[in-house]
Amino acid sequence: MVVLSTVNERFIASLKQRRDKLAQLIEHPVILWSGNLIGRNFQANKLPFRASSHFLYFAGIPLINAVIRLEAGKLELFMDNPPPEATLWHGATPQSEEISAAIGADRVYPLAELAAKTAGAATIAVQDLSTYQQQSHLLNRPVALSNQAESIDLELAQALVQLRSRHDDLALHELRHAAAVSVKAHKAGMMATKHSTTEAEIRGAMEGTIIAQNMSCAYNSIVTVQGEVLHNESYDHQLQAGDLLLADVGAETPNGWAADITRTWPVSGKFSSSQKDIYQIVLQAHDDCIAKLRPGVEYQDIHFLAAKIIAEGLVDVGILQGDPEDLVAMDAHALFFPHGVGHLLGLDVHDMEDLGDVAGYEAGRERSDRFGLGYLRLNRPLQPQMLVTIEPGFYQVPAILNNSNFRSQYQNVVNWERLSQFDDIRGIRIEDDVLVTDSGAEVLTAALPTQIGEIEDLVLNH
Amino acid sequence: MVVLSTVNERFIASLKQRRDKLAQLIEHPVILWSGNLIGRNFQANKLPFRASSHFLYFAGIPLINAVIRLEAGKLELFMDNPPPEATLWHGATPQSEEISAAIGADRVYPLAELAAKTAGAATIAVQDLSTYQQQSHLLNRPVALSNQAESIDLELAQALVQLRSRHDDLALHELRHAAAVSVKAHKAGMMATKHSTTEAEIRGAMEGTIIAQNMSCAYNSIVTVQGEVLHNESYDHQLQAGDLLLADVGAETPNGWAADITRTWPVSGKFSSSQKDIYQIVLQAHDDCIAKLRPGVEYQDIHFLAAKIIAEGLVDVGILQGDPEDLVAMDAHALFFPHGVGHLLGLDVHDMEDLGDVAGYEAGRERSDRFGLGYLRLNRPLQPQMLVTIEPGFYQVPAILNNSNFRSQYQNVVNWERLSQFDDIRGIRIEDDVLVTDSGAEVLTAALPTQIGEIEDLVLNH
Repeated sequence: MVVLSTVNERFIASLKQRRDKLAQLIEHPVILWSGNLIGRNFQANKLPFRASSHFLYFAGIPLINAVIRLEAGKLELFMDNPPPEATLWHGATPQSEEISAAIGADRVYPLAELAAKTAGAATIAVQDLSTYQQQSHLLNRPVALSNQAESIDLELAQALVQLRSRHDDLALHELRHAAAVSVKAHKAGMMATKHSTTEAEIRGAMEGTIIAQNMSCAYNSIVTVQGEVLHNESYDHQLQAGDLLLADVGAETPNGWAADITRTWPVSGKFSSSQKDIYQIVLQAHDDCIAKLRPGVEYQDIHFLAAKIIAEGLVDVGILQGDPEDLVAMDAHALFFPHGVGHLLGLDVHDMEDLGDVAGYEAGRERSDRFGLGYLRLNRPLQPQMLVTIEPGFYQVPAILNNSNFRSQYQNVVNWERLSQFDDIRGIRIEDDVLVTDSGAEVLTAALPTQIGEIEDLVLNH
Repeated sequence: MVVLSTVNERFIASLKQRRDKLAQLIEHPVILWSGNLIGRNFQANKLPFRASSHFLYFAGIPLINAVIRLEAGKLELFMDNPPPEATLWHGATPQSEEISAAIGADRVYPLAELAAKTAGAATIAVQDLSTYQQQSHLLNRPVALSNQAESIDLELAQALVQLRSRHDDLALHELRHAAAVSVKAHKAGMMATKHSTTEAEIRGAMEGTIIAQNMSCAYNSIVTVQGEVLHNESYDHQLQAGDLLLADVGAETPNGWAADITRTWPVSGKFSSSQKDIYQIVLQAHDDCIAKLRPGVEYQDIHFLAAKIIAEGLVDVGILQGDPEDLVAMDAHALFFPHGVGHLLGLDVHDMEDLGDVAGYEAGRERSDRFGLGYLRLNRPLQPQMLVTIEPGFYQVPAILNNSNFRSQYQNVVNWERLSQFDDIRGIRIEDDVLVTDSGAEVLTAALPTQIGEIEDLVLNH
């Protein structure tokens, strides 16, 4: 159901500005599809609809099965109205003319008119296969998958990255809203812990809070006492007093803008002394990385800063042995921090990841095959109005720590006996959403505590 | 993530019984695909996975991108194991051999082996287009959409309907669990009303409860003060003291079994006297229909019973004029109760609706084009172990009541002036899930009150 209440003149002006900028970056007409509904188990029972992010960037609102054509700053909207009998089931819905006016389109046409207006247009493949097949059909040429875009589609991808990687005020308004609701959700999760016996109950409190604010989840939540499973999507474990709970949960606004927050807290409300030691190392990395963010800084250097602080901390507590810089050079930190320090954030939680590394990696740069660097999703100099996550972590992943190659390779730098005294830590991550400003950085999710005392207080005293 | 904790010997024996019964109903081998994950806005960010219901019926658990081949009571499972490096992100997941043992498969093969074993097999098309295209490819013949199944696929559809429309103990165990959690969700919604200001907040309380029990929603929730919009999926209205809130929300177990409950309650906690009058009419229809359910009864007669009780009630309060039986014969009740009294319930909330009317309509029967009957989804004699919903309602749908054809057609039987005194009722529906037993019926959702006093109490005193 399209809700037009969020749109107004500033909204229309921002969308116009976006397509004017696009016109400066690309000469070809651009056609973007929103995608269509997908049946869940039968046709009338649909999966939640998510419009294509590139479509959302220029159309502003999630229209189902709609297409926009952009050329020289003009927007043509293609969509059909529901049949009149649909009002029985769906009530009076805004008609295409009304939607067209609300998003400041220059013209609106029925979908059937699109076929005559596709010549020479660039596009980006959508995720929904039925619409994707229509894209090739209507453009009368094979359209490559979005992470393999070619020719004019690749030019378009590059233009979109240039536009979307620096957020305008309209985007920031949405992103701040998503951040605020996600903060609320995490507080609700902490406050629900005392009365919960399973991971699922904490997830219910967190996602229930997001739904209550009329938002959805930007990605599948991680709410787990097994934080070492990096993409854990089961929620059936019982909570035990000594467990740390890791929650990576973020809201998405109705128009598609995301937040992405992780906190780790003790089920009992009190960190053990070993948990405190490690938590403080991760927090130090988090804080120091954020303090360094500003235009011009290389994001990869931020990643290495996190690696170094973690290595230093692990040397201090006796888990690693040696010089921290040397340890990072040999990727010893990656035994415990195997992923990147963060990524772009915007309409997608990994923003524009549908375009492969076109968004995350500066032209001419490629993913490293180094153990400690292969999962770094962002490798660019930072620019004002970029939004990134900073999310260092510490994990004891059996697939890494029990790997015989790693064990022999890092035999002399890990004190395995000392490590065994930290076996009440499976995974800790602290993640915030940070906007690069003209002179530094602003943490959009700063309202959610990171300090041990404040977190314990939220868990215990509610 | 596959959780094998729910499986045991009884589970395996029930699955075996299901495929033995299937073997008695169809001579061809049967191949069923589970379906695959679908990207939400980029490939790594997935829509929630829902395995095909027919697959779930025989495999028992939701396996991603798996296939089962059933022949003469034997089950062959085809699935690939994740690559070893997946353990970093997803932890140690059960391997195909372990899954095979857990569901009592006779053999397990990698997916690549399937191509050699498809000769002469019947199937049902899945919803996910990528898998659907593989079905035709691997069977080496066009596979029609599931609601247009032909030839041996139609035979299979008919066999599935015969099996799935009467629930065995394993199914009933799941269905009772879904019902119990849905009851909890509705109570949470009522209890959250006093402190809520928007529809979304009540939805958050209800869906949060379902998530907290490690279940998902069986369908997109309806939580609205505009109950006259039958498939309302927006949640942004403010709650006003005089409003009725209609909530149609049901849980689904991790293995895919659904519940489907509707309740309607006053935002203020107190029904007005006009709201009470109409609520009592709908409740009378609900109660009387349930009292009549037993094997051999025609479900269509239950629908007409609801229509008659609603017509009688509306005559009693002065909204309709004339003899109730005559009013039903001319579909006057359908001005206010335009949908059917219910449907089958099982793995799908409209069970087996992917097969079109093969499940809902007895062989040789077709949908009526009568205004009061066209939306009836079930027209069969009831059998023991069938699970149906009973969901009469009263709505003031502008698209119906302002329709000039209807107004002239029903000019003499509606007292429009009297009707205007009921304008604080937009939509009321009361829906429960009822199991046909050998001698009568059992309401699986009976723990949720329907009586005005009890509902007011839940809303007010929490």
